[in-house]
Amino acid sequence: MIKKRERSAVILLSGGLDSTTCLAIAKKEKFNLYALTINYGQRHSFEIQSSKNIAELYKVKKHSVVDIDLTQFGGSALTSNIEVPKKRDLSKFTDIPITYVPARNTIFLSLALAWAETIKSSNIYIGVNSLDYSGYPDCRPEYISSFENMANLATKSGIEGKSIKINTPLINLTKKEIIELGISLKVDYGRTTSCYDPKINGTPCGLCDACYLRIQGFKSASIKDPLDYSD
Amino acid sequence: MIKKRERSAVILLSGGLDSTTCLAIAKKEKFNLYALTINYGQRHSFEIQSSKNIAELYKVKKHSVVDIDLTQFGGSALTSNIEVPKKRDLSKFTDIPITYVPARNTIFLSLALAWAETIKSSNIYIGVNSLDYSGYPDCRPEYISSFENMANLATKSGIEGKSIKINTPLINLTKKEIIELGISLKVDYGRTTSCYDPKINGTPCGLCDACYLRIQGFKSASIKDPLDYSD
Repeated sequence: MIKKRERSAVILLSGGLDSTTCLAIAKKEKFNLYALTINYGQRHSFEIQSSKNIAELYKVKKHSVVDIDLTQFGGSALTSNIEVPKKRDLSKFTDIPITYVPARNTIFLSLALAWAETIKSSNIYIGVNSLDYSGYPDCRPEYISSFENMANLATKSGIEGKSIKINTPLINLTKKEIIELGISLKVDYGRTTSCYDPKINGTPCGLCDACYLRIQGFKSASIKDPLDYSD
Repeated sequence: MIKKRERSAVILLSGGLDSTTCLAIAKKEKFNLYALTINYGQRHSFEIQSSKNIAELYKVKKHSVVDIDLTQFGGSALTSNIEVPKKRDLSKFTDIPITYVPARNTIFLSLALAWAETIKSSNIYIGVNSLDYSGYPDCRPEYISSFENMANLATKSGIEGKSIKINTPLINLTKKEIIELGISLKVDYGRTTSCYDPKINGTPCGLCDACYLRIQGFKSASIKDPLDYSD
């Protein structure tokens, strides 16, 4: 028999392609789903509405949207008036782009950790990816492993031996493979939003790094992206 | 010549005895002071006003108060309707008390990390203490060291080799020693607030763990606590 704490999982859900695929994976694993969305003042706050729609569709046990204003720190194109770079061929870039938000995943995982401990869950899911990605340091396996170690020293549950696990089922998949996996799990990608700089009605720009990775992924998988990029 | 990033420090400032002593230490070290206070829905939100007074007194370069509602997770006497334990002789307790807030220091340090990276600072101060304390896991040296490792994998500055340092100058001091150090740095402890469950006008209860540790500390140091515990 699986114990109660092993049946619940906190899933960081942005409303994008990766996190929605993660939610579908956690559902397949038969976890009670606790979806956590962070409204951090992101330029693309349209994704908050997508996360709500997706949480409802997946009948999660609870969906928490936590407000935390990271624009007061700024330092990123997603949280200040810096322009989002467009039309970058990511295969030719190795630097960390200006869309990097300082310590974002650490803040997100810390909040997931707080919630997980409160509901006596040992499992956190985050849809980070270290292949088809923008080079953010907090998406790499060594970072996740280090966060997991820290989490088990930080918490009452950790020191009582009930280890926290940070699940990253997408970390070594290409975007093509993520999409194929999601399709096999019946993810409706038409409900997800990936764009960093969408129009006010949610239409993706088709030109930012997030759109680039998504478009390339669908193309490689020979699957039609259900999103409409035209005005 | 000290480089710019080495001259700024982010100090987590609750408005209490320990964090104010930390601020005084960072000032003595001649850092540009960036004070960070987290309004997390704590029962003792009176401390937010204390932190503002102290930040002003120390002429910090900037004081940020970040709102983040941890009451939506609850799980602690400080963030829900659970009663704050009173009159506990801490020398006789070894369990983690109900005032423990899941992942609180991890959330606080993550936010400090975000701000530090944005202002190109390599130094974070936190007033954790592992001797005269309530037994919270996220106050122990092994936790801090693990957070520091993680922080350097999480950030752009970390992977560029500009290491983040989590400074914990109080971690191995008794409360008596902290107070003596603070007095030598001219800390005005009459402006600090430590109580978990103060009256509406800020009068400390004198009976919770935080009051207990503070009162014992002043007693051991043979110094009069400038706070008035009577109604």
